[in-house]
Order: sequence, then structure tokens, then C-alpha cells
Amino acid sequence: MVVLGIDPGSLITGYGVIRQESGVLRVLASGVIRMQASRSHAERIGQIYRELDALITAFVPDRVVLETVFLNKNVQSALKLGQVRGAVIALVMNRNLLLHEYAPREVKSAVTGRGSATKEQVAFMVGRLLGLNPVPEPFDVTDALGIALCDLLRGESRDLVIPQRKFRSGGGSWSKFVTESPDLVIRG
Amino acid sequence: MVVLGIDPGSLITGYGVIRQESGVLRVLASGVIRMQASRSHAERIGQIYRELDALITAFVPDRVVLETVFLNKNVQSALKLGQVRGAVIALVMNRNLLLHEYAPREVKSAVTGRGSATKEQVAFMVGRLLGLNPVPEPFDVTDALGIALCDLLRGESRDLVIPQRKFRSGGGSWSKFVTESPDLVIRG
Repeated sequence: MVVLGIDPGSLITGYGVIRQESGVLRVLASGVIRMQASRSHAERIGQIYRELDALITAFVPDRVVLETVFLNKNVQSALKLGQVRGAVIALVMNRNLLLHEYAPREVKSAVTGRGSATKEQVAFMVGRLLGLNPVPEPFDVTDALGIALCDLLRGESRDLVIPQRKFRSGGGSWSKFVTESPDLVIRG
Repeated sequence: MVVLGIDPGSLITGYGVIRQESGVLRVLASGVIRMQASRSHAERIGQIYRELDALITAFVPDRVVLETVFLNKNVQSALKLGQVRGAVIALVMNRNLLLHEYAPREVKSAVTGRGSATKEQVAFMVGRLLGLNPVPEPFDVTDALGIALCDLLRGESRDLVIPQRKFRSGGGSWSKFVTESPDLVIRG
């Protein structure tokens, strides 16, 4: 099972590819697609489509996962974000892949245990859960990995193996999935 | 020269394919893609992509033409429209086609002579200019044909052959391109 998480933005789009095999999670690829602001919106949308298409060809995900949009009050930015999302969704449909979507709160809750977690906390937990050291930057990458992780954790949460050793700092509800081992073990 | 005009919407997307050959304009195809509101937005975006992809394969346009968006104050509808536009633009880029965009005022002005023309006036003039009887409905179709027509008229306006016989009704500036013949003649 390979899951591609995408965090689309009008200038930076984060992505993360996670493989789950025999209950072990591993990051196959993660990074950002940066679009030049000087390019036309059509060129940027074409670039996003092409680069994600290449990523799908390379890693053959079974599912693509997005966050539903948190809408602020700016109509212009909603349109721009919508255009990038539309290109991503069209690609997913065009490649006949399954698309899952989660609300931002669901992603934060699945990854950190708290629906109101900050981006820093998501990044920290993504790094911990996936054994990434150093934790990748910028937040677009950890957000995208968190989105993919949410899908894997949600689908399998009843079979999740809670690690013996609790993560040392913090405590509270958002440490419940934490492990210090590089792989999070899930029973297939 | 074949031009595809598209008027994307979150539920109805109009399209019109116009061929210009030896200075004669002819409609090759026009209609709407209706999306079922009951389907998910991802399915709808997939449908738009597939159907327009098939249209491009069938008619091999040299250019695709869109209107720039007139933004109202609804953020949710801006996002939805953005998603459909993003799918359309991704398709155009993916097929390596040239994309032209015009402001709504430019389209109305090119087709009717008045930047503030109503949809009825655009439909009426599109019907006249392209010899369509009856004029196709709904307005999504005539808007899409108007967008394609704008591109052809704008590019060639200096060589436009003004017909001898003025259109009888209306008068004023928006009758200047009118002909009663089924084809609008443009010097190649």
C-alpha cells in the first residue's frame, strides 16, 4: 500500500509518499514543487500537473490524499487555490486513482491527537512517527506527509500497535501514537 | 484554425468549437457538460477533464480560450469554480495547446460592440455571426461560442470584412460586425 499525500498551494505544493508494507511505514519520497510567481497561472498549473504526474508514475500510489480546504475570506486566493486543487484532482481522476479527503482537524487529530495542533506540532510528530531525522522542511512537506499518514492511521487505527515506550516530552493526548523507533508498526 | 471556447462552471460547463478556414467561420460543435450535483466534486472534475479531453481529441483545436473570472464575494463558489478551471487549464497544458484568456468585457465588446452587453445580447449576436438558427441554449453555450469568437475576431479584426447589409434591428455600435449570411467572412 502506497499513499501520496499532497498539500496544494498556489506557489508551493508539498507532497509525501508513504509505503505501508507488512505493517511498517516508510517514506519513499517527500518534498515541494515550487512555482515561479513570474510565470502565468496556466504555466504553474501545467507544471504542478506534470510534476505530480511524474511522481505518480515513479511511485505508483494506491491512493492520493488531500485536505479539504479551510476557507479564509479572500476570494482571489480561494480561486487560485481552487485552480491548483482542480489540476491535482483532475490528475488523480485521470490516472484512475482513489482520492481520499480529510478535514484539517482530522489530519491534525490523527497525527498529533489534537485537532487544534500547530504546524510545528504536526511537523514534530510526522518526524517522530516516520523516523525522519532531521524533520523535513518547510511545513508544506510535513503537512503533506501528515495528510498521507492520517489516511494510513485512520484506516488501520484499530490495529495500530501502540509502542511500549511513550515519547518523553509533552505528554497529553497528542503523544499517544508516538514511538522512537524509525518505523511505526501497524498490524496488516 | 480551430478554436475551442470554454465557459467553465461548477455544475454546467459550456463549450464551442469554431473553425476558421479561408476566412469563413463555422461551428463544428457546441453544447454543455452537465455535472450531477449528487456526485462528489472529484468525480465532477474527473468528468469535465475526460469529456473535454475527448472533445480535444475529436476536433484538434489550435487554441483553447477562456474568460478571466469575474469574482463575486462568495469564497466557496470561487473555490469550486477555481477547481473546475484548474482541471480545464491542466488539460490544456497537458495537451500542449495554446491558452488565451480574455476579460468578460473584452468578449462582450468583441462580439456585440458593447462591454456591458447582457447574456441575451451575446447569445443573439453569436447566433447571428455564426448563422445559428435556432440560437443554441442555454447561455453557457453561447457564452462559450462568444469566447471562441472573441479570439478569432480579436486576432483578425483589422482584416474583418464588414458586410454590405447592416443588420436591421438595434443599430448602435454593437451591430458593426453583423451579417445575415450564415458565415462571417474574414480575410485570411
